[in-house]
Amino acid sequence: MALVKYDLNVPHRLLLGPGPSAVHPRVLRSMSTELIGYLDPEWLSLMDEEQELLRAVFQTKNEMTYPMSGTGGAGMETAFSNFVEPGDTVVVGCNGFFSERMCEMAKIYGANVKRIEKPWGGIFTPAEIEEVLVENKPVKILALVHAETSTGALQPLEGIADVVHRNGALFLIDCVTSLGGIPLNIDASDIDVAYSASQKCLGCPPGLSPFTAGDRAREILRKRKTRVANWYLDLTLLEKYWNKERVYHHTPSTTLHYGFREGLRIVLEEGLENRWSRHQANAEYLWDKMETLGLKLLVKRENRVPSLNTVCIPDGVDDMAVRTSLRETYNIEIAGGFGPLKGKIWRVGLMGFSSQRENVTLFSEAMREILRK
Amino acid sequence: MALVKYDLNVPHRLLLGPGPSAVHPRVLRSMSTELIGYLDPEWLSLMDEEQELLRAVFQTKNEMTYPMSGTGGAGMETAFSNFVEPGDTVVVGCNGFFSERMCEMAKIYGANVKRIEKPWGGIFTPAEIEEVLVENKPVKILALVHAETSTGALQPLEGIADVVHRNGALFLIDCVTSLGGIPLNIDASDIDVAYSASQKCLGCPPGLSPFTAGDRAREILRKRKTRVANWYLDLTLLEKYWNKERVYHHTPSTTLHYGFREGLRIVLEEGLENRWSRHQANAEYLWDKMETLGLKLLVKRENRVPSLNTVCIPDGVDDMAVRTSLRETYNIEIAGGFGPLKGKIWRVGLMGFSSQRENVTLFSEAMREILRK
Repeated sequence: MALVKYDLNVPHRLLLGPGPSAVHPRVLRSMSTELIGYLDPEWLSLMDEEQELLRAVFQTKNEMTYPMSGTGGAGMETAFSNFVEPGDTVVVGCNGFFSERMCEMAKIYGANVKRIEKPWGGIFTPAEIEEVLVENKPVKILALVHAETSTGALQPLEGIADVVHRNGALFLIDCVTSLGGIPLNIDASDIDVAYSASQKCLGCPPGLSPFTAGDRAREILRKRKTRVANWYLDLTLLEKYWNKERVYHHTPSTTLHYGFREGLRIVLEEGLENRWSRHQANAEYLWDKMETLGLKLLVKRENRVPSLNTVCIPDGVDDMAVRTSLRETYNIEIAGGFGPLKGKIWRVGLMGFSSQRENVTLFSEAMREILRK
Repeated sequence: MALVKYDLNVPHRLLLGPGPSAVHPRVLRSMSTELIGYLDPEWLSLMDEEQELLRAVFQTKNEMTYPMSGTGGAGMETAFSNFVEPGDTVVVGCNGFFSERMCEMAKIYGANVKRIEKPWGGIFTPAEIEEVLVENKPVKILALVHAETSTGALQPLEGIADVVHRNGALFLIDCVTSLGGIPLNIDASDIDVAYSASQKCLGCPPGLSPFTAGDRAREILRKRKTRVANWYLDLTLLEKYWNKERVYHHTPSTTLHYGFREGLRIVLEEGLENRWSRHQANAEYLWDKMETLGLKLLVKRENRVPSLNTVCIPDGVDDMAVRTSLRETYNIEIAGGFGPLKGKIWRVGLMGFSSQRENVTLFSEAMREILRK
């Protein structure tokens, strides 16, 4: 078979898209490590360490803090499959692609979904949220996307937990594009359920979804009347493997966990505050650079996601031609928009190890050369 | 944080358990490769190559042949969530742990489950299967485990497709512990749906589940009356990413796919027939060695799974003490039994790169030393 002859030969790309972002060489090297068994005492210690590191990154004391075996989509499905029962009311702040996906998943698990609508790129105030919670009482979950990857808009979290808990709901957030790059403190913001992804600001390969759930959410899980309608992501089964019982559920991806542990160490070595500042500073540098090229940003300055920057495509410029030129001539990957923003924006990720000043310098100069042609 | 200081320091273990098995150094090295984006043309070519390699290993022409983003459990859930609709009758051959799990999953997706029962370690004849299919007509799926990891019994596949198709059902098999180690030809055996796992006889790390479905099954999928009640594993969404449309569903685990592609190449370089012979020869060598130690095998010779050998624990021998000694003194991992076989058997995996003559020599001598103490 001809294919057997071809060695893996992957081009070098500067990854400035919506993820995967560049992976730190230490993380890449760690994944060449030999495997051990999923009940080996040395492996069980690694699991404990990984959880401790992950709690520090999430800034939570939540016991139920696991890297789920899947990407962010699996993290989202973990949230909705475990905490929704048929007939529950779920309120979703709809302002981009990933909140639409939240609605879809909540429906799969039988939720009565109530949408709060904003145009793509909009954000919600606590007062707007409270109004919908009061109207639809009792609400089981209020779900928001913290940093919307499809629009580059950042949802402020201040004051939301109060209105959510006052109305008896759980506060659920998607922090796929924020965790490790943008200020986020699960316990201080009193968030009940959150999930993220390994391949964004944490700088690891895709394949794991960091997940955390607090006591309020666990109580809801314990009191379910029906069984969780998903086997692979069932937290009531998974907690038996992650807690002291160590009951086998599925074989974790040893290699991805090696890499994830190393990635979390790198995050904490740098320090969360330093890391957030770095992401912010490189984003601001990008915004300035784009403005000097005459390019506008989609989102107003105070609501921008520094890890995912949305640049408006000027009239008469061919979206795909620019991206192809970036890739083929400069080996740089960025992404286009989708849904209502298709053809209207470029999405420039500055996440994790990809968020470096020199990457912005290179990208901006490449854009200058391409656009002046 | 103290943990930040500790480098990953994993002991070397000879992995002779139920998986993960030892990973070939070429596969380990491939996973240190830099990442590229999930819509990069180079990545899309890699996906095509991976599918072509996987079809060759499954011995199928099925277009719907993907490595699913999860372990074998996710593969099993892919099968039941996509091909079962509420109220469908599913017949499961129940003879071990993983067929029990099949029943559990089929029920989650609303199936009316009919069990054909055998004691753990038993196997089924086509006549026994036909009887139950006829009794319960119409049956949507007949599901069997090819190589049962909990018992070491091999289910012969000859003659089963005929009775299944004659009765209008789909033939579904779990080949988690057989693919790449034991003779299996999806198209020749006329199997409609099959799933496996990367970390067994294919010698890759855990995290991917090779999956294949033929035309009969795809037709059933196309004609579903209800949507697939699982988002992450929904084949109707995934096929849009794997086919020419390339519509984003979730970000694949770049690193695991690099490793998996390399692992599949190694399988095909060796050749399937050679690989099956190697697994058989090393298993037979193990059986002889165990007999010279006075140890009996659980399953009779003609029905043994060569990749997963179940050795009866002699009266008076302490299961856990032997396994601890193997691990602590010899760095060898094997596994115990579970369910009705807990404390009664050891499970010795000879899978993929772990299936080497010298590993059997070492393991057998270590056992001799431990047991004569």
